[in-house]
Amino acid sequence: MINAKMTALGKKRSVIREIFEYAKKRSGEIGGENVFDFSIGNPSVPAPKEVNEAILRIVNETPSVALHGYTSAQGDKGVRDKIAANLRARFGAEIYGDDLYMTCGAAASLTISLRALCNDGDEVVLIAPFFAEYKVFVQGVGAEAVVVPSCPSTLLPDMVALAGSITPKTKAIIVNSPNNPSGVVYDEETLCALAKILRKKAEEFGTRIYLICDEPYRELIYDKKTVVPFAPNYYDDTLVCYSYSKSLSLPGERIGYIAVSPKMEGHGDVYAAVCGAGRTLGYVCAPALFQRVAAECDGLTADLSIYKKNRDLLYNGLTKAGFSCVYPDGAFYLFVKSPEKDAYAFCERAKKYELLFVPGDDFGCEGFVRIAYCVGTERIEKALPLFEKLAKEYAL
Amino acid sequence: MINAKMTALGKKRSVIREIFEYAKKRSGEIGGENVFDFSIGNPSVPAPKEVNEAILRIVNETPSVALHGYTSAQGDKGVRDKIAANLRARFGAEIYGDDLYMTCGAAASLTISLRALCNDGDEVVLIAPFFAEYKVFVQGVGAEAVVVPSCPSTLLPDMVALAGSITPKTKAIIVNSPNNPSGVVYDEETLCALAKILRKKAEEFGTRIYLICDEPYRELIYDKKTVVPFAPNYYDDTLVCYSYSKSLSLPGERIGYIAVSPKMEGHGDVYAAVCGAGRTLGYVCAPALFQRVAAECDGLTADLSIYKKNRDLLYNGLTKAGFSCVYPDGAFYLFVKSPEKDAYAFCERAKKYELLFVPGDDFGCEGFVRIAYCVGTERIEKALPLFEKLAKEYAL
Repeated sequence: MINAKMTALGKKRSVIREIFEYAKKRSGEIGGENVFDFSIGNPSVPAPKEVNEAILRIVNETPSVALHGYTSAQGDKGVRDKIAANLRARFGAEIYGDDLYMTCGAAASLTISLRALCNDGDEVVLIAPFFAEYKVFVQGVGAEAVVVPSCPSTLLPDMVALAGSITPKTKAIIVNSPNNPSGVVYDEETLCALAKILRKKAEEFGTRIYLICDEPYRELIYDKKTVVPFAPNYYDDTLVCYSYSKSLSLPGERIGYIAVSPKMEGHGDVYAAVCGAGRTLGYVCAPALFQRVAAECDGLTADLSIYKKNRDLLYNGLTKAGFSCVYPDGAFYLFVKSPEKDAYAFCERAKKYELLFVPGDDFGCEGFVRIAYCVGTERIEKALPLFEKLAKEYAL
Repeated sequence: MINAKMTALGKKRSVIREIFEYAKKRSGEIGGENVFDFSIGNPSVPAPKEVNEAILRIVNETPSVALHGYTSAQGDKGVRDKIAANLRARFGAEIYGDDLYMTCGAAASLTISLRALCNDGDEVVLIAPFFAEYKVFVQGVGAEAVVVPSCPSTLLPDMVALAGSITPKTKAIIVNSPNNPSGVVYDEETLCALAKILRKKAEEFGTRIYLICDEPYRELIYDKKTVVPFAPNYYDDTLVCYSYSKSLSLPGERIGYIAVSPKMEGHGDVYAAVCGAGRTLGYVCAPALFQRVAAECDGLTADLSIYKKNRDLLYNGLTKAGFSCVYPDGAFYLFVKSPEKDAYAFCERAKKYELLFVPGDDFGCEGFVRIAYCVGTERIEKALPLFEKLAKEYAL
């Protein structure tokens, strides 16, 4: 009688959540120091000190009604102008405040963008491995998720498969770089190839195909050579979905934005549809205090050197132990090839050593596991000998 | 090609917004002190001082990762337990933390509840006058809004019309008390009569009909005799959609909750559907800092004596001038009968005196205007002679 899909979705615990709960239970049994929980992508590094400083300053300096009142639905104009100015300075993209729509984080950015673009029966292309909730969001707006594989050796899109997946019903493709769960970054060559395919197919079918870039991990890169190209500079019909959850370690505060590239044809209609979609989904405005905090702290990051240290330690340790893994340029995940075909069985076997991580199946890739390294560095140091023992079981 | 409904919704300026913009323009021309803008329902009273004190204390005392990290999707358990304890103490209702789902404010509470309950083609009953966005929310989940009138003399539901509006497709009815735009409060007798009809019709059709109570104005009542009955005590299949926007003057911060009455049959399925709906719409969790602020300040209110003073002044002044209006027990609106049939024409004529308010048509009632008195008291004092002049034009 009520919406059965919603009940099922609410009851179905994600595998990540199940392992997280198991970790809590196990910690109670044998002590947290003996359990190595790599299941959750929750930032482990504090917000930069400027965040709390900004909160205190704004609260102390702003009259209550102005501070806590509604902003316009798109977000405070001063906030949007400031963030847009930073985007222009960083990427040379002609994006202005009126191209931005402030949101309650990346998930909201995605559901609003999808609701704005899609009609019933449209198709949205996802490139495996992908963040598991994408399917929920795509199906939630009545569209169909079309999954295409990556090249197994690079975890970058298989361009032939990608081109083949696009039909006259394709409304959008979601790209997530740096990628959750693989940590892979789409380089300029990849983005150019992708844009070329989208342009060609859009022309062939006489349609528009929107590129939705989900970029909560944009700043989480660890090597000087790594560049995350800014998609609006390569493809006109782009919406960038950003969140401060990871860059500023503020995942609980729900603050981000959508940037609708002004170069797209029908920009005004798409931006209006974003506004209409936000209204329909019940997003009146993004949280007012954190809009201002985001504007003040835009461009800062949490201390990423900790994640870099963790990545180097874990990547080097695991590959030395014999595990196989694409080098992760960013985010805080390693997507490791399972040494046995069934990743669930591998995860179960790892539990013997109190090593907890999640199978890649929910991310659209069988035979892989995701290891989240947003943990204390000493956890990784202590876990590495256990990973070595696990590797020996497989004679790696 | 993109979603045309969303584009239309984003482009369509609400009448309220149009008048608000006109007020800004007019203020530029003749000075803000000469323009009397009663169009917007934005709290004019500061948040109680405990709100900012709580923000500063929580920020200073809580480690960053714990403070700004994800809470569970339903909301922090401690927060929910504390708010539920207050509900038990205030209303004697057996509601516990696990019956609550923290949200980004009342609009989110409503869209999540509707998404949880409704399937395509379901009907949702709205009682005119109603908050205009209800229609957007209902249609946004693929349901149909069925509007029933109130008794013109009381603006309470016309129970005969209400009973007649319920069909086997009726999934829910939205009740908003204290009411926006009328300020009317549903007393115990009204709620009992409503519950009786819902029970009878549900039995007759072999369906369940959910009562969705939208209660952002619950605490905004001004007379000792006024009681806002707590619906879960009168009807089992109730979801209470609450927001702190008005009680704590925090509309921009987006914080509220859904209380799923544990007395309803299938409570677990409905609560799960709420969780699934929140996930589908992209609400990962309610803003973490303000969840804690809400729990600490639950039960407090902004200084309501200002609204009471405004209400008394405006109600007495307008009725004395000859206007006709149901006595508003709560919220911060007066719903005044238009002295000419066309409320738009009345609003236009009022502009001559720089008096700005909105026609009731968008609230589902022709021939009325909404006057929002969440303004400085001196604005009302200065406006009253102008209302008197306006009344004379109509020979009231």
